Amino acid sequence: MFVVEGDKIVTDIIQQDPSGIEQLYLTEKWYKKSDLSSRQKHSLQISILKSGEMERISSFKSPPEVIALIHIPHFQLDYDEIAGNLSLVLDKVQDPGNLGNIIRIADWFGIHHIICSSDCADCYNPKVLQSTMGSIIRVKTHYTDLSTFLQKLTPLPEFGVYGTFVNASNIYTSSLLPAGVIIMGNESKGISKELFPYIREKISIPAFQNHNRSIDSLNVAAATAIICAEFRKRTG
Amino acid sequence: MFVVEGDKIVTDIIQQDPSGIEQLYLTEKWYKKSDLSSRQKHSLQISILKSGEMERISSFKSPPEVIALIHIPHFQLDYDEIAGNLSLVLDKVQDPGNLGNIIRIADWFGIHHIICSSDCADCYNPKVLQSTMGSIIRVKTHYTDLSTFLQKLTPLPEFGVYGTFVNASNIYTSSLLPAGVIIMGNESKGISKELFPYIREKISIPAFQNHNRSIDSLNVAAATAIICAEFRKRTG
Repeated sequence: MFVVEGDKIVTDIIQQDPSGIEQLYLTEKWYKKSDLSSRQKHSLQISILKSGEMERISSFKSPPEVIALIHIPHFQLDYDEIAGNLSLVLDKVQDPGNLGNIIRIADWFGIHHIICSSDCADCYNPKVLQSTMGSIIRVKTHYTDLSTFLQKLTPLPEFGVYGTFVNASNIYTSSLLPAGVIIMGNESKGISKELFPYIREKISIPAFQNHNRSIDSLNVAAATAIICAEFRKRTG
Repeated sequence: MFVVEGDKIVTDIIQQDPSGIEQLYLTEKWYKKSDLSSRQKHSLQISILKSGEMERISSFKSPPEVIALIHIPHFQLDYDEIAGNLSLVLDKVQDPGNLGNIIRIADWFGIHHIICSSDCADCYNPKVLQSTMGSIIRVKTHYTDLSTFLQKLTPLPEFGVYGTFVNASNIYTSSLLPAGVIIMGNESKGISKELFPYIREKISIPAFQNHNRSIDSLNVAAATAIICAEFRKRTG
């Protein structure tokens, strides 16, 4: 199970899919002001905490008014759904803040699946959950071996397998397909060599040319944001 | 003064502008493998640390091989330079990770000035420095009263004052000028009302339309990345 803290994310989860909630811990004040229906009040396991208890169980500096304990969902990788849509593939993205941010970017751009290598950050890590702002419940995050996953996509026609690099074809002049996967690599090493054979098109975000460049890359979440925006603008 | 840790950022600073360095603390191993010229070895204040000392002074879990103590630079706001270029204005951006990330995005896109409200995160906070990856020394970050700053730009012709909102004109169909400022607001509250009178064009990043949207915004650094990319693509 995992823990989410705070009014906004817990309210989001109750409204969208309360079935995974094992237990809610809340203050009396939150219980009174919340929009819980009487049916929800009956069906959810609710513990109203006494003064001081929230401070003790919260991982936040200022304790929230509600905390939920939630079952980790188990998704099957649906290859038919992936074949017809745009998804993200993350290769060793290790910073929890980056992963959380990428999940939130995916949600904004209507990307429903993120396929992570087994050595990516854990999406139920509290730092990830805090950066996702509730997107964790709308975007399905899978952990698997990426070579095996990408190999299964090889026969698909009209399907893009895009690898993001620092120096490759300019994304603004590359041809982009509406269905495919966009591979984002590790924060310092980029995409692993063993995934290169599966990549059909290498793409890059051009840096501004007139400047004395010595920065060597964009942060992976910032790059994901720019690339997803461009895909959705042109193919969405 | 402020402290930066790690081979990459310290090497960047030595190569680009060593004048601000007060002192370098380094291991013997780093001293031997570093590319310091004999002139640099004479002009820089260097302390070679004994085994165990780096662990004690570093704020990192795994201590780096070099740490630099650097004077905080003092920049004057150069209105002539701002009048002819694209700059970022940050209104109450409070998360250090977001600020660091935005400084790095600015560097990638050749934006040389970031003007912050006095209540933004401190750009010399160790978390900011870690996310900037050395861009802190190439991008000038100013702290000032934003109303006063924006008021001085009011008479400028052919100069855009763009405010970023969740629901405004689509950036892809807005007219964008090569010189101007892009205002990004606070992580939860957006741009302060007192800055509204100075905004000449409101812009938004469109969310993907076909999805069951309940996410209410992009992270401010992700939004900055997308907006800077679009400006540089169309006006750069």
